[in-house]
Amino acid sequence: MSFTPEKMAPLKARRLGIDTHHEPTLFLRADSPICRSEGFDSLSRVRVDWGERHIIASLNMVCSELLEPEQAGFSESAWERLELVPNAEIRLSHPRPVQSLSHVRAKVFGHELDELQLQSIINDIVEGRYADVHLAAFITACGDDALNDREITGLTQAMVKAGSRIDWGLEQVIDKHCVGGLPGNRTTPIVVSILTACGLTVPKTSSRAITSPAGTADTMETLTDVALSLERMREVVRTQGGCLAWGGSVRLSPADDLLIQVERALDIDSEGQLIASVLSKKLAAGATHVLIDIPVGPTAKVRSQEAADKLAQSFQIVAANLGLKLEVLMTDGSQPVGRGIGPALEAHDILAVLKNKADAPADLRQRACKIAGAMLEMVGQSQSGEGEKRAQEVIESGSAWEKFHGICEAQGGLKNPPVAPYRYALIAPHDCCVTGIDNRQLAKVAKLAGAPADPAAGIELHVKIGDRVSQYDTLLTIHAENAGELNYAVEYLSDHTLVMTLTNEKGNDSEGEH
Amino acid sequence: MSFTPEKMAPLKARRLGIDTHHEPTLFLRADSPICRSEGFDSLSRVRVDWGERHIIASLNMVCSELLEPEQAGFSESAWERLELVPNAEIRLSHPRPVQSLSHVRAKVFGHELDELQLQSIINDIVEGRYADVHLAAFITACGDDALNDREITGLTQAMVKAGSRIDWGLEQVIDKHCVGGLPGNRTTPIVVSILTACGLTVPKTSSRAITSPAGTADTMETLTDVALSLERMREVVRTQGGCLAWGGSVRLSPADDLLIQVERALDIDSEGQLIASVLSKKLAAGATHVLIDIPVGPTAKVRSQEAADKLAQSFQIVAANLGLKLEVLMTDGSQPVGRGIGPALEAHDILAVLKNKADAPADLRQRACKIAGAMLEMVGQSQSGEGEKRAQEVIESGSAWEKFHGICEAQGGLKNPPVAPYRYALIAPHDCCVTGIDNRQLAKVAKLAGAPADPAAGIELHVKIGDRVSQYDTLLTIHAENAGELNYAVEYLSDHTLVMTLTNEKGNDSEGEH
Repeated sequence: MSFTPEKMAPLKARRLGIDTHHEPTLFLRADSPICRSEGFDSLSRVRVDWGERHIIASLNMVCSELLEPEQAGFSESAWERLELVPNAEIRLSHPRPVQSLSHVRAKVFGHELDELQLQSIINDIVEGRYADVHLAAFITACGDDALNDREITGLTQAMVKAGSRIDWGLEQVIDKHCVGGLPGNRTTPIVVSILTACGLTVPKTSSRAITSPAGTADTMETLTDVALSLERMREVVRTQGGCLAWGGSVRLSPADDLLIQVERALDIDSEGQLIASVLSKKLAAGATHVLIDIPVGPTAKVRSQEAADKLAQSFQIVAANLGLKLEVLMTDGSQPVGRGIGPALEAHDILAVLKNKADAPADLRQRACKIAGAMLEMVGQSQSGEGEKRAQEVIESGSAWEKFHGICEAQGGLKNPPVAPYRYALIAPHDCCVTGIDNRQLAKVAKLAGAPADPAAGIELHVKIGDRVSQYDTLLTIHAENAGELNYAVEYLSDHTLVMTLTNEKGNDSEGEH
Repeated sequence: MSFTPEKMAPLKARRLGIDTHHEPTLFLRADSPICRSEGFDSLSRVRVDWGERHIIASLNMVCSELLEPEQAGFSESAWERLELVPNAEIRLSHPRPVQSLSHVRAKVFGHELDELQLQSIINDIVEGRYADVHLAAFITACGDDALNDREITGLTQAMVKAGSRIDWGLEQVIDKHCVGGLPGNRTTPIVVSILTACGLTVPKTSSRAITSPAGTADTMETLTDVALSLERMREVVRTQGGCLAWGGSVRLSPADDLLIQVERALDIDSEGQLIASVLSKKLAAGATHVLIDIPVGPTAKVRSQEAADKLAQSFQIVAANLGLKLEVLMTDGSQPVGRGIGPALEAHDILAVLKNKADAPADLRQRACKIAGAMLEMVGQSQSGEGEKRAQEVIESGSAWEKFHGICEAQGGLKNPPVAPYRYALIAPHDCCVTGIDNRQLAKVAKLAGAPADPAAGIELHVKIGDRVSQYDTLLTIHAENAGELNYAVEYLSDHTLVMTLTNEKGNDSEGEH
């Protein structure tokens, strides 16, 4: 007996103009004959067919005159997925049970998943068969150490297969990724500029922030257009040697794009998901060589050398399984990099470094050169131990800035990052020395101030560990785009005196008083 | 610095009549000044204030004329939680970060949670501060063996504290629970009737199905009104000695009611959540003595004696921590109980047993008497070893039926369970013997047929393990309320020949051919 949506009367499609983000949603009158005859209710998932296309949507019942009984209302994502036209005659039916959810449950109960099971989960996610609660369960079940290296390899492959993959026809296509956790560590735009200036191919796609105040895509968006189609991305790389695009718009790893939205809502970014997310995007973008930057520090994402070694090993095993050349660089993760934390504030730092300005943040510049240098050595463009110096020269010569400018122009034009109208300065309570900075608390304050959704929001950090400051010197400035969020950030900061450890001249600690 | 929603312009409330079930949802025009000034988007959570009340809602942006720019549209649950009136001037603001989500993350990463942390999670859930994805993460993080007995005790207490608790002023208030997994095992209405007929106080609340084709509340709903307020429940117990109410409407454990909805969508029901869910409801209902029925069988929820012992031990430790007298009865879980699987079909079995009919399912009757007998012994109403016989006499005398009738009348009147119009009979392919029945597969078929949402849907099972059947005898009948769902159930059944193991006379296995 086959499935027969045709047996049921069609409904007329109506675009309601409601944005339920990625979760396709259908709105039906509770008193419509189809709901009564099919037993649909507000907890149902429903299959919608139009022509050759179909989607699985979540159902919201309407008990008002918002819809006619014969109408089916569509959210924006549901309308777009089906490519509907007004009054299109759509058909509804009970969706088949999503078989791969049994694999998610198996994972919750501690079972190892094989490649086929992971592929079926990822395919169902990309096909839109998972509601947000199912994505949340999958992410949570993969949390902590739940995935072993075989599973991470399988998950990575599944993610690559579920999207498009670029073949550049080159022997060396290079890419980098920082595992994050260090506010302001926005080396990528600088590294890409240096490497492309050296003639390498760097098709860089970046994500938006998951749990941090800014991702590279958020920062680059304050400088140029990052929402490139796959075709435009290819064109930019062809003419410039590299690009700085948002991974979500090129849809190189569409499963990851959906997972990341829920990871953000949950503020969970587990090791297995992290590796699969990173490597699936590198593989899909056609990379052959990848450098992974792991900042290590007590308040960074990776807190100890042991944890860093474990993560590096997993990265290397999975990359080897997938035929990718991968090196790991462990970097100092004890404090933020540069001055800005938040999309636009970090963009200002990047511009200063690339323009070779005297007051550019020296630490950001040095980290970018160290990473670019390691990558130049990795592909044999520099002798061992000479890469960093070469990278510095590329900045000093102005060719890195020229390249960055060229890439931004090719992506749609270089623009000035926005500036926030609301500010609050945190003042040193007395003469003292800065002896500690908490990356996590700073990130939290920047997020409360509105970053990354508000591009100009964030923190401007005026001190580094080891700095001596005088009473009334400004330690940091919170930037916000509206008063409400500034209030939250300031309120939180006043409740949490551990953002910064200040030691006064007599040697006593005075933790972040103000 | 205090929180000041008053600074922003008010919006006019409009009831959109959209039922987003328990997740309160707010609809705003994307081009409204407040969205632009506050940076709200479709991934935001937003705080809504009206008078003394406030809620946290999920936001859906509207990019059509569905709303005026100064209007804020409300889903049904959001409207009801705020007790709004049309055009009420509501104020929006950024919600404070939900602090207890950090405890959920700690659980994902394997940390033990203390009582205060669990209480803050449960309080935030009851206050509506968790979106569905957060509930899904919490449920998943508590999956498998993630909670130890200390945590289960803390979670149970937190759930009790978050709701109301009845004090009957009696020394003995008795209750029972079956951990489920055995289709058709609907002993509760019979047990409650027997015990109240013996003069005991049994304020029974039951849940709707989580992952099964029917919960006791679903079955009882086909016979009488189960959606009682706490006041009506007290009244029924006062006059009848017991009740058979739906736990969700009396809101004795409101956190559990919310968790169960998402557990159902995820089809996950973990040990820790199970124990906390059960015991929190018993404590809230004022029970002093509780009997737990654990059916054990290869395709039951609890598959082995070891698993049953472990679960029983956890139940006993947590109950002891909470001052509750608890006994565990392990029962045979090898096959379904009675004939019906699904709300109405199970109700027919219950009526047959209570009315002492000759063709009543003997296995259901015997299990109910065994459980009721153990409970009579537990509270000292019967000598050890004599309880089951006493229970049988109470049924035979007609006083159990009288009591059941009285309880249903007190709850709003006894009614006839519905009958399904669509049916499909599975026929024996040849003379054979039934040597195995898969509870899980049968439950799946019954759910595909529409149970429990469609009360008349489910399976009528005509055979038991050990039965000899002739060719063309009906093995089971699928019942459905509509053709679409009947198709799914039949289609699944034809793909899965393991619902039943049939051994032919020559001793060869022929697994469920038809």
